[in-house]
Amino acid sequence: MHKLLEHLIVQNEKKIVLLVLDGLGGLPREAGGRTELETACTPHLDKLAKESECGMHIPIDFGIPPGSAPGHLALFGYEPLDFPIGRGVVAAMGIGFPLEPRDVAARMNFATQDADGNITDRRAGRIPTEKCAELCELLKNVSIPGVQVFIKPVKDYRAVVIFRGTGLSDKVADTDTQKTGVKPLDPVATEPEGEKTAGITKEFIKQAFRILKDLPPTNACLLRGFAELPSIPGMKERDKLNPLALAVYPDYKGVSRLVGMKVIDGINNLEDQMRLLKENWNKHDYFFIHHKYTDSKGEDGDFDAKVKEIEKVDAIIPQITALNPDVLIVTGDHSTPAVMKAHSGHPVPFLLKAMYTRPDDADTFGERACARGFWGNIRTPVLLQLALSYADKIMKYGA
Amino acid sequence: MHKLLEHLIVQNEKKIVLLVLDGLGGLPREAGGRTELETACTPHLDKLAKESECGMHIPIDFGIPPGSAPGHLALFGYEPLDFPIGRGVVAAMGIGFPLEPRDVAARMNFATQDADGNITDRRAGRIPTEKCAELCELLKNVSIPGVQVFIKPVKDYRAVVIFRGTGLSDKVADTDTQKTGVKPLDPVATEPEGEKTAGITKEFIKQAFRILKDLPPTNACLLRGFAELPSIPGMKERDKLNPLALAVYPDYKGVSRLVGMKVIDGINNLEDQMRLLKENWNKHDYFFIHHKYTDSKGEDGDFDAKVKEIEKVDAIIPQITALNPDVLIVTGDHSTPAVMKAHSGHPVPFLLKAMYTRPDDADTFGERACARGFWGNIRTPVLLQLALSYADKIMKYGA
Repeated sequence: MHKLLEHLIVQNEKKIVLLVLDGLGGLPREAGGRTELETACTPHLDKLAKESECGMHIPIDFGIPPGSAPGHLALFGYEPLDFPIGRGVVAAMGIGFPLEPRDVAARMNFATQDADGNITDRRAGRIPTEKCAELCELLKNVSIPGVQVFIKPVKDYRAVVIFRGTGLSDKVADTDTQKTGVKPLDPVATEPEGEKTAGITKEFIKQAFRILKDLPPTNACLLRGFAELPSIPGMKERDKLNPLALAVYPDYKGVSRLVGMKVIDGINNLEDQMRLLKENWNKHDYFFIHHKYTDSKGEDGDFDAKVKEIEKVDAIIPQITALNPDVLIVTGDHSTPAVMKAHSGHPVPFLLKAMYTRPDDADTFGERACARGFWGNIRTPVLLQLALSYADKIMKYGA
Repeated sequence: MHKLLEHLIVQNEKKIVLLVLDGLGGLPREAGGRTELETACTPHLDKLAKESECGMHIPIDFGIPPGSAPGHLALFGYEPLDFPIGRGVVAAMGIGFPLEPRDVAARMNFATQDADGNITDRRAGRIPTEKCAELCELLKNVSIPGVQVFIKPVKDYRAVVIFRGTGLSDKVADTDTQKTGVKPLDPVATEPEGEKTAGITKEFIKQAFRILKDLPPTNACLLRGFAELPSIPGMKERDKLNPLALAVYPDYKGVSRLVGMKVIDGINNLEDQMRLLKENWNKHDYFFIHHKYTDSKGEDGDFDAKVKEIEKVDAIIPQITALNPDVLIVTGDHSTPAVMKAHSGHPVPFLLKAMYTRPDDADTFGERACARGFWGNIRTPVLLQLALSYADKIMKYGA
């Protein structure tokens, strides 16, 4: 589809805003009750919904819980199955590491192991980022002949390791079992071309564990999501857009960089995001604003806290609408129902406000209302297509 | 999909009517208001909607404004992207010109140029068809060795030129810039196989401009939409239908001929269409009735006039239902909201009335009602499939 679209897309001055409340979709706390979004007091979003075309979107396919990276790729108009992105790449891009095509990156957790080598805490007591940075500094003493190794702190207990050399491959299985009470796995190749990298990883882990040995609770590390840089056409070239990402968390900045967005670093909260949106309003035509904490609270299973996060975002809506974007989409990248404490495969509610939208029956912003909305259930990548269309950026097909 | 269908389709006596109000879909004049179709007083269509399954259809893909030819191909059950049709072919078919596979056709506008050769009016003051026919007659004096040239009037300032010869190709760019104040472009090949035809076109233009030189406001001509006949399986063979087209405008007769419909010429209005529908009721089993002016008024930005055109069509509905068609579909080929003065990518409302339809919540014929209808948003080519099915023309798949 996008092959055809590329011939029809034209550049113009109209502005698109995509506001993502991560993990927005939810579920009622008890049968017959209201979801987080339906519970939240959201006068501004409700008013928007009344003026918008609403619906539900499905990032990967019916019933498949999306990860953050594919969820966002879909929101940016990419068919996520066409562009699989490993976690390692997302982490590296997120901190702005200049990945090269011959690199292999993996997400690393600092972790705690007991005397038998069993992992007792996969997050090393959630050490702060500063501590993580110190440990990464120590790990610079790892030395593997013929390979450059980069170890970079990400956030809290999270780091990323990048191997650079010839003949490397991401066909290496995770060492992280995602369980406690068991030993980490040895790195093994999942396909023959991964043998060399599995060997390098084994050597890396050997040296790293030696360095971390006497530093509990950070006396172990776990690797997962070995990945190489995928080749993704940028939104600039593909969609003739000049996109800006306003995100706090590294992973979302990573996905944004991957599709060629300009990313502003050092953003800490919604206030920063709103200030920078205004400051950069004349310099871009596509703005991606990301709010993480709806997802975090959902994953914590904290229904009320997720409701509060939604209300926080509702409060900043007037600052966005005051700028009169030509197209405003408010949605999530997937559902994270607090009752499930996890990403789920449920469709995600969205609203699309533009000059030329048709009225529909959704007059509040919620799952039930959006399911009654104009669009029913659509695939997530369609949203960018609709945004471009409603911003008059798609020419007529055929005579 | 249609490959499978061909094995399942059976011929029977049941009759399908497709009534197309061109550019039917619309938008409210002001936020929160009613669309053209919702505004129109349409007692007969509303009654039909109550008895029908309703929904919205999408001719090309989400958000893509369809041209008339692909919009109609989709309504006839063809995936428009599989059968791209150039404008020249549509124009030639529209006037009943017997195109051959080795022909290249282009749409021609008579136009006005100033002393410097810049185009001042792309439509030559909208000369009447008779004047256009005279000019085409004059252009018969163009002579190019080895090539037959046909120049035929279409409507008003529109004509079509057909080159017939060996080694011709439609890989030639438009000479029409679609702008005034600039010179027409020289014809150039867009791919190597277009070189010969580009050369022939250049010679044609040289001679034509010499002939038109002293005849302002028609002292120039502009060519666009170079096209060869696409190979489209006919509805007779593919769908075992014996279809009849009742259309006033050449382009729609053209698309109808392209899919093997019988086309009756000399139709001027809805009265002619209703008379011919009755006269031919026993001779065909698929009837395509086309009303152009809903689109024209939409393109003019005349909301009220579009409303009136819808009401005119509503008034003839009883003449159609009196014939008791087994399946009646009323819809458009795309949306042409008066507020946008252009084709748009918005889905198009439809109703489908047949013996065995399920009741739904659409109890008037309008965008909001149809969005609440049984079918939600479907791709346009599905409509033919549904028509065949509801006319008992599709056999069971599998044991």
